[in-house]
Amino acid sequence: MYPTHLRPRFGSVFMRETKILEIIRNRISSAGDDAAIIPFHNSHLILTTDMLHRTSDFPAGVSPFAIGWRSVAVSLSDLAAMGATPLGVLLALGDPKLEEGFVTGVLEGAMACCESVETRLIGGDIDRHQELTLVSTGIGEAKQPIRRAGAHTGEFVCVTGELGRTQAALALYVRGETKQADTLFQFSPRVDWGRNLAGIATSMIDISDGLAHSLHLLAKEGSVGFAIDEKRLPFLSEMDQLFLPLERSERIIFGGEDYELLFTLPQHLLRNDNSCPCYTVIGQVTETEVLLDGRKLPDKGYEH
Amino acid sequence: MYPTHLRPRFGSVFMRETKILEIIRNRISSAGDDAAIIPFHNSHLILTTDMLHRTSDFPAGVSPFAIGWRSVAVSLSDLAAMGATPLGVLLALGDPKLEEGFVTGVLEGAMACCESVETRLIGGDIDRHQELTLVSTGIGEAKQPIRRAGAHTGEFVCVTGELGRTQAALALYVRGETKQADTLFQFSPRVDWGRNLAGIATSMIDISDGLAHSLHLLAKEGSVGFAIDEKRLPFLSEMDQLFLPLERSERIIFGGEDYELLFTLPQHLLRNDNSCPCYTVIGQVTETEVLLDGRKLPDKGYEH
Repeated sequence: MYPTHLRPRFGSVFMRETKILEIIRNRISSAGDDAAIIPFHNSHLILTTDMLHRTSDFPAGVSPFAIGWRSVAVSLSDLAAMGATPLGVLLALGDPKLEEGFVTGVLEGAMACCESVETRLIGGDIDRHQELTLVSTGIGEAKQPIRRAGAHTGEFVCVTGELGRTQAALALYVRGETKQADTLFQFSPRVDWGRNLAGIATSMIDISDGLAHSLHLLAKEGSVGFAIDEKRLPFLSEMDQLFLPLERSERIIFGGEDYELLFTLPQHLLRNDNSCPCYTVIGQVTETEVLLDGRKLPDKGYEH
Repeated sequence: MYPTHLRPRFGSVFMRETKILEIIRNRISSAGDDAAIIPFHNSHLILTTDMLHRTSDFPAGVSPFAIGWRSVAVSLSDLAAMGATPLGVLLALGDPKLEEGFVTGVLEGAMACCESVETRLIGGDIDRHQELTLVSTGIGEAKQPIRRAGAHTGEFVCVTGELGRTQAALALYVRGETKQADTLFQFSPRVDWGRNLAGIATSMIDISDGLAHSLHLLAKEGSVGFAIDEKRLPFLSEMDQLFLPLERSERIIFGGEDYELLFTLPQHLLRNDNSCPCYTVIGQVTETEVLLDGRKLPDKGYEH
């Protein structure tokens, strides 16, 4: 039986209201991960698909190039979170107008994002649609996929890069500073870091719906808890200019879509670890509960 | 360089109005096929993605089960057209309401279709969306992928099964005979036949947008022509009950979405060929032009 996964995106709020997720997990999935795994030729194929659309994923002012880039980047981030090497990306695009300039801009962004991690846009589908809709599918290979389950008590909890990128971008779009916003919105999927962490990280997830929710998912799948230190959380310098300290923390912890990698690491590997040059230890794996500075961290996302 | 493909679905009309398809083919694709090909471990991965949505793909009266089945079947049909063995399917589902009964019906249909060809629904994405939208991605393996290019003058042109299935289903939905319509709408992807034709058929495509358009695509990619005999076209018996002879022919030739396999076969292989028990020779490969009973066959789809 394949380890499989059907993951709701942006769906945590309504998914709690229904039993759909439970049904999906009982019928399709034996374990939750960022992508599905198919054992293949002494290795593993890693597959993931993500649906983005105008209303909930693309703020006013975002460029076609940034739309295409980000649509592909979210799937590449899922592959990164499994420690996979991308083999290619497919992109389905639906749009009411399908204007030439817009479509080519989206495709150029998608191709550029693929090239940034040494993979290619290999195919897709284009159709008229009432609302701009992009569905990207990433396929990769991993000899040793990194799962969400696998953390042990006492290990370090780590995060790549800096948090707050998408929250900062959204604020900049509102201000009309679209160029700077686009730069932040077009995040770099952490493919190299993910791949380098294979065989080193004991569990991993990408932060696609807030640090708090990702910590809870990782804790649940690994049957562990986390003790996180708020002062250790790395955040983007722009966040300090854009938000007051309280709101900044709220957005970093509960704000969605940072697409950094959150992973656990045995303590003895920390000292001489050159696998991933840019990560921060933010806490420790415990037996149960997700705590921030000793208080229970709610499993909620930011209402954006 | 990968042989790649970005294929417009239901897009032939508007695609002629713009240069998008040309741009896509120049930038992304080196050859048109039903799916993308990635050489992998002495074999080939075959990948395809298809976007369907309420307005253009799901008539009033269609059941959730049939919606899920068909969404997956269109991608499995693309894999079949490459002679691939499916490894799994991903399904992204967007819907305004996401009611439990509806979503589970769709997923059950999708799973049943996968099981009918001995593969599995391995993952996906679920999201709220203004319009019902389903994007399925099929992944398969083929030692010898069958391409659209490859036909030679003098070979036979063949089609699997019977034509008119979707046209008959649409007419039955209009009449309110939804149960019989669903049965026709849930077509069987020709996975077994496609796989059996690997190494035998010289070129192949699935009929996803009308026989006429598929013949033109196959002729163009193979740099050949076809001479088709109308009287040889196999059609579903329901078509005779639902349409007058002239409209029946129009719908069979230009009506979209039969999802039968259209392929070319060397003459010497015909006599003792048990690879595909249910196909019909409908014509012959020529040097140039697509002719039906000696007259030029227009490259147009049925306006549905």
